[in-house]
Amino acid sequence: MLPSEGDLHTVAIGDVTTEAGATIADAAIAVRRWGELRGEPDGENNILLVEHALTGDTRADDWWCEIIGPGKALDTDRWCVVCTNALGSCYGSTGPASEHPDGDAWGSRFPAISIRDMVVAEAAALDALGIGRVHAVLGGSMGGARTLEWTLLYPERVSYALVIAVSARASAWQIGIQSAQITSITQDPAWQGGDYHATGSSPDAGLAAARRLAHLTYRGELEIDERFGTSPQSGENPLGPFRADDQRFAVQSYLEHQGKKLTERFDAACYVALTEALNRHDVGRGRGGLNKALHSINVPTMVVGVDTDILYPYHQQEHLSRNLGNLLAMAKLSSPVGHDAFLVEARQMDRILRNFIALTEQAPSGREIAAARGEYAI
Amino acid sequence: MLPSEGDLHTVAIGDVTTEAGATIADAAIAVRRWGELRGEPDGENNILLVEHALTGDTRADDWWCEIIGPGKALDTDRWCVVCTNALGSCYGSTGPASEHPDGDAWGSRFPAISIRDMVVAEAAALDALGIGRVHAVLGGSMGGARTLEWTLLYPERVSYALVIAVSARASAWQIGIQSAQITSITQDPAWQGGDYHATGSSPDAGLAAARRLAHLTYRGELEIDERFGTSPQSGENPLGPFRADDQRFAVQSYLEHQGKKLTERFDAACYVALTEALNRHDVGRGRGGLNKALHSINVPTMVVGVDTDILYPYHQQEHLSRNLGNLLAMAKLSSPVGHDAFLVEARQMDRILRNFIALTEQAPSGREIAAARGEYAI
Repeated sequence: MLPSEGDLHTVAIGDVTTEAGATIADAAIAVRRWGELRGEPDGENNILLVEHALTGDTRADDWWCEIIGPGKALDTDRWCVVCTNALGSCYGSTGPASEHPDGDAWGSRFPAISIRDMVVAEAAALDALGIGRVHAVLGGSMGGARTLEWTLLYPERVSYALVIAVSARASAWQIGIQSAQITSITQDPAWQGGDYHATGSSPDAGLAAARRLAHLTYRGELEIDERFGTSPQSGENPLGPFRADDQRFAVQSYLEHQGKKLTERFDAACYVALTEALNRHDVGRGRGGLNKALHSINVPTMVVGVDTDILYPYHQQEHLSRNLGNLLAMAKLSSPVGHDAFLVEARQMDRILRNFIALTEQAPSGREIAAARGEYAI
Repeated sequence: MLPSEGDLHTVAIGDVTTEAGATIADAAIAVRRWGELRGEPDGENNILLVEHALTGDTRADDWWCEIIGPGKALDTDRWCVVCTNALGSCYGSTGPASEHPDGDAWGSRFPAISIRDMVVAEAAALDALGIGRVHAVLGGSMGGARTLEWTLLYPERVSYALVIAVSARASAWQIGIQSAQITSITQDPAWQGGDYHATGSSPDAGLAAARRLAHLTYRGELEIDERFGTSPQSGENPLGPFRADDQRFAVQSYLEHQGKKLTERFDAACYVALTEALNRHDVGRGRGGLNKALHSINVPTMVVGVDTDILYPYHQQEHLSRNLGNLLAMAKLSSPVGHDAFLVEARQMDRILRNFIALTEQAPSGREIAAARGEYAI
């Protein structure tokens, strides 16, 4: 039922009705897995569900190559690692760039989705694969937001959770900087109301500008400064008598490169859709508020943050640690790199993930705790 | 020789040759003062030279109204407070929006300036007013950068300095976020290469976008979140089935308001010119490097920072404190407000400025120290 190891598999999940009441007809979710499934697909098993970040994809063995594999922290000789592409993305799951049932791109017809919608779609994909439960869900950034929602929407399906570099809801600052990114895309004349996919032009300039901004929130200012400082780009003079766009500091060239790279692999409308979902991230919505929602979580959850994270400052993970109903552990990455440290500080992440796996083999699971409370059968 | 109290006075300073070798012909610097001058204009006196931030003006009694006035920390019954408008700005000093000698606006003919150029022009304005020395120079943000350059360019003219919420040079992160602001203006079709002043249109949309970004670096994420969180703008629903530009979170409306307000009072080309000067801020340039330059400063200098400053993080002020040749004192504002705390945390700033003034009346001045070393006559 699971796809062959490492291969991209697309799972049809039928219509998805979003939290805000729109419908995505004939949706699909892309999935990959590594390692053999052991145990009961609908009971105790060895599945680790890995949730990717904003522009990530199902290739968790690539973007987390130091973490996932035989003998690594997420040891594919022992664990069955599954990674799904988020609803709204462009790596196999249905999003604005995907084909609508009428044959054109979804474009502006793709509705606004929430983190919860992503998790509902992902759960439907696991249903279609015959997987009723997983040993753990884990992820960072947008993947951490999805992980949190897994523990609230489907606590009976998740034994343990690891939430990295995210918050219980979008902060106003995050909404501000994320909305600036959305605006830079939608104000690109090539945006065409979101229906550019068949026009031969696309808002690449807007997407690149959005990514440049985003990158300044993904990387710590210490790391960026250590790398570039006030150095000029090689062969250019940013200190000339007149400002000129082609006479840059090295950091400008670096950011432009980051922006351009994204336009070569990502769709602008998908970027808007996923960024909008981050704006709407709020585990408290409709659940009596933020802390009541967090307190209701009985899935044992480990929280990880980065000391220099600009986008999701560490106090937001401390907030989670104080308010989660069943905190399994807390860990802090110490790094000049900022938010992206969970992707690049391999040595620290290795230790953290090994600790997490060990804890999941010792502490009672959310299901065991709930069963002891008589909340649902184990 | 000084203008009458509170009135805007414009001082002609002739041609300014910039650090990068361009010429600004027939330049002028705007100035205001409060309190009577006592002492010798060219020797010991009671002048406090206040340096404004990026979009500030000579109205220091307005933007620092809790700080400057009779009986206040900068007590105008005792001190003669002088505030000049920076070269490149649009509040009376020569900038891109000013009239060129040929009668049109300077526009794209206005060269790239540095913080040093601002200080050279300001010193020329004081010369024209007959003022050879000041008791102290002080300022925050861009005003702090100018203050630092005063102590390096004219140590014999400054007895004490107070440098607030700034760094010894632009960091790569600052250059990154500041360049994003410049780009949002210069990519506005109304920019017209910088020569829009007589065209009847101006890049207000780009300037507003720049300000929205900047504002997210001026305000701490804690304060913005405390005020707005995930609240919708009144009467709007940012959680509807489709994303819509007119259905906003409250923080989006707030940032749009900040952007719009700036377009009503500031010129886009001046914003570019001053932001470019911040990109070029580097006290080490041509002086044997950053720390050698800082170490050479003999003017007793107090350093102030804000614990939650995103734009000029506190470690940058700690760097100044470790490397300044003559550190007078160090103080930290504790505030969720971030960078702007030096403008809005009036109670803390009152204490800090009273301490600074008291220290300048106790510690030997830079001139006294230099004279003791035989560097120049007192």
